[in-house]
Amino acid sequence: MVLVYASRLDPKPWLEAFGRLMPELEVRVWPEIGNPDEVEVLLAWRPPDDAFQRLTKLRFLQVFGMGADQLLRSIPIPPDLPIARLVDPDQTQGMREWVLYHVLRFHRRFHLYDRQQRAAEWVRLPHTDAQQRRIGIMGLGALGSDAARTLAQLNFEVAGWSRSPKEIPGVAAFHGADGLAAFLARTEILVCLLPLTDQTEGILNRDLFHRLPRGACVINAGRGGHCVIEDLLAALDSGQLEAAALDVFPTEPLPADSPIWRHPGITATPHVATIATARSAAGQVVENIRRARAGAALLNLIDRNAGY
Amino acid sequence: MVLVYASRLDPKPWLEAFGRLMPELEVRVWPEIGNPDEVEVLLAWRPPDDAFQRLTKLRFLQVFGMGADQLLRSIPIPPDLPIARLVDPDQTQGMREWVLYHVLRFHRRFHLYDRQQRAAEWVRLPHTDAQQRRIGIMGLGALGSDAARTLAQLNFEVAGWSRSPKEIPGVAAFHGADGLAAFLARTEILVCLLPLTDQTEGILNRDLFHRLPRGACVINAGRGGHCVIEDLLAALDSGQLEAAALDVFPTEPLPADSPIWRHPGITATPHVATIATARSAAGQVVENIRRARAGAALLNLIDRNAGY
Repeated sequence: MVLVYASRLDPKPWLEAFGRLMPELEVRVWPEIGNPDEVEVLLAWRPPDDAFQRLTKLRFLQVFGMGADQLLRSIPIPPDLPIARLVDPDQTQGMREWVLYHVLRFHRRFHLYDRQQRAAEWVRLPHTDAQQRRIGIMGLGALGSDAARTLAQLNFEVAGWSRSPKEIPGVAAFHGADGLAAFLARTEILVCLLPLTDQTEGILNRDLFHRLPRGACVINAGRGGHCVIEDLLAALDSGQLEAAALDVFPTEPLPADSPIWRHPGITATPHVATIATARSAAGQVVENIRRARAGAALLNLIDRNAGY
Repeated sequence: MVLVYASRLDPKPWLEAFGRLMPELEVRVWPEIGNPDEVEVLLAWRPPDDAFQRLTKLRFLQVFGMGADQLLRSIPIPPDLPIARLVDPDQTQGMREWVLYHVLRFHRRFHLYDRQQRAAEWVRLPHTDAQQRRIGIMGLGALGSDAARTLAQLNFEVAGWSRSPKEIPGVAAFHGADGLAAFLARTEILVCLLPLTDQTEGILNRDLFHRLPRGACVINAGRGGHCVIEDLLAALDSGQLEAAALDVFPTEPLPADSPIWRHPGITATPHVATIATARSAAGQVVENIRRARAGAALLNLIDRNAGY
């Protein structure tokens, strides 16, 4: 039996998808647990506080999204309980579109043309060919490597940076603390798609911004915790950064009085880059249930030491 | 000898490119013609009024861009003079980026998120998957077929419409007057990349807008003459169209008092989608000079009956 703890999500599409994919599967929605000993899987973004006291027969914990940081930072999780995340083609497609749009926005200076339009100014700005435009992707997991490949196919000069070495055709590879300075020094448009861990929290900070060439642009679609907002605002105000695009914020929803909303150098979207959809992700949960019941290895397990 | 009539363009990069590609080629810049009988090729966007009275020994006329409408509508051109246009990979790349950005803008509703940002509103708008998003490309020449292919590769549901039948893998093909209604009825985001001819002038008009589904978006990167601006404004104001993106206008530069600049449903850029660059296009002119001297067929000749 699967227990869905939907908090802010609508559980209905998930119930429909489970019913279609595995009609014999019993699905309950928190707080209607029934007998807690029957719960094999908890599907949650952040589990409720008393979840693991009550659900002692869990086979595994399935997080609703690709990132597990919210879950790992919530309540203590029994150390041996396997945790799986979703690796969802719809999420990859959504992120690809979001990243591509904002890279094109800065590459072709549409953020400046927007401003000119409001002032009724007809001025053509200098053009840089994609072949000369140096994009840097931080984080080469499912989302980052897809974004890097997509941008390379569009003829951008793409580099990637990751914790451990990765190889992507057409993408210059940098890794580890030793590779970071060289990666940043060649990057005009930086895209953060890292997982949020103790190592990456606050990585988009004053020091990093000043290792980019002057006038660089920063795009954060990772987590709000990656970016030190006061450092970002200072780097924009000094001209060290030309512009930034943010989909994630330290506090969400972003408060109406946040200076981020109205800063002329910032494009902000309300955490919409990507969302797991039942249509494309429920199949992975069903597959993991089958595997768990058969004693087979689960898909997309989280490495709890690495934090993602 | 090549004569360059640069009008508003800077001829310097072209002179440098010719010097590099064909050092023995003599190049002059209007009005420093020297002996007019030595001019083999006129490279121009719109030729000067007395060009063909003076230049009677021309082998061919080379237009500076991909579209010949400005040239064909300027002064009478001797009927047997071959006219070549540029088909420039840099222009194709530039248009691909410009179109992709504006399709993504409307597909993911970034035009509405921009407005929400200015009002400090955190609201997630309904999402449509690319697979369900129906894009329609009018005009399947070098630019249109490239845009159609690129969008199909990004998983959009793409159709194309052209005068004569065309086949592009992954793109539903419509053609001719008979195919137009069905093409429009299924198109949520319409992209115009047609050549400007007597048949296509004013094609983006009230009648066409009302054959699109209500709430469609229109993107014009063809020519200003394709779009009847008063019809566009009326269709936006009535809600028949949700939004439009324009790079080209009936009068350029767009006058500061034009209502286009400040209409909330319009994104306007100052004719920057694509521009021929000497770096990537001068080689085609040189190749055509070699061919003309050898009596071989020229590249990228314009069909003067079709008008492109």
